[in-house]
Amino acid sequence: MQKIKYTAFIVSSIDGRISKDRRGVVDWASDEDWNFLQSSLAKMDAVIVGSNTYKVSKERLEKRNTIVLTSKVKKVRSVGSITFCNPQHVDIGSFITEKGYTKVAILGGPKVYDFFLESELLDELFVTIEPVIFTAGIPMVTGKKFKKHNFTLVAVKKLNKKGSLLLKYKKI
Amino acid sequence: MQKIKYTAFIVSSIDGRISKDRRGVVDWASDEDWNFLQSSLAKMDAVIVGSNTYKVSKERLEKRNTIVLTSKVKKVRSVGSITFCNPQHVDIGSFITEKGYTKVAILGGPKVYDFFLESELLDELFVTIEPVIFTAGIPMVTGKKFKKHNFTLVAVKKLNKKGSLLLKYKKI
Repeated sequence: MQKIKYTAFIVSSIDGRISKDRRGVVDWASDEDWNFLQSSLAKMDAVIVGSNTYKVSKERLEKRNTIVLTSKVKKVRSVGSITFCNPQHVDIGSFITEKGYTKVAILGGPKVYDFFLESELLDELFVTIEPVIFTAGIPMVTGKKFKKHNFTLVAVKKLNKKGSLLLKYKKI
Repeated sequence: MQKIKYTAFIVSSIDGRISKDRRGVVDWASDEDWNFLQSSLAKMDAVIVGSNTYKVSKERLEKRNTIVLTSKVKKVRSVGSITFCNPQHVDIGSFITEKGYTKVAILGGPKVYDFFLESELLDELFVTIEPVIFTAGIPMVTGKKFKKHNFTLVAVKKLNKKGSLLLKYKKI
């Protein structure tokens, strides 16, 4: 049985904010980050999102094998390529294994990133830091308490002239 | 009259957190970041901090020309090399000009960084991103509302093997 590889993708401001509010559409990120994300997702078997991220990206996610983590269902419920799962009741790893997926992208939001950190499933992380400070808004990751999740930086790439910076980390 | 140059220094987790809580001592940052900060501060005329940052770094700041921004004084009050200023009542720029300082370091915390962004005084920013995610804690910058402060990335330096990354930005 092949191990599942979980890769998180995040685009953030310098100060670690990913949108203005919960319904925030990411219209401030660079085209270069967008292109990187799209070409990366093309190589993935499935994507995982939370219900807010699902709401703002519904149309685009319909093209993909999408797992929506939500507390609003008890059993697994599928509509087309979209599957709604409650991680309190369903073992996500087993579900993904059954489906035969091995390359899975985690696309947020903050609680979903935290879930994969806390359950020690996350393998790698791509963060694009756009050269902007927001001073307020939704933080990249939201957990219940302060904790130290260690990574190693494995690659750095400047995506454009203004300095959108793509960082690749591996979980230790 | 020489223009004053304001440079902010920040050490942060990947998710934009700078400490566990308000009294948080930064004991998790790399030695390489610490060495960079110390050698940078040696070239500065003065440092500016908020009252919480002052409290946790009191002894080290006593060696430097330090301006503490605080709402707890009305007039400027000096004790040795430490000066307490209320930015509501005192024009920081004029005060620094009078003192003859031209290279000024902004050392935080979150509201102090925001103050220099909001007043459009900040010229450049050094951010060291340590390869760790905290999921909770104090955010790098805290403003009253979501706003877009644009920067350009001018330099990237990997400080050590695990990948503490020093980024230099200029304000646009």
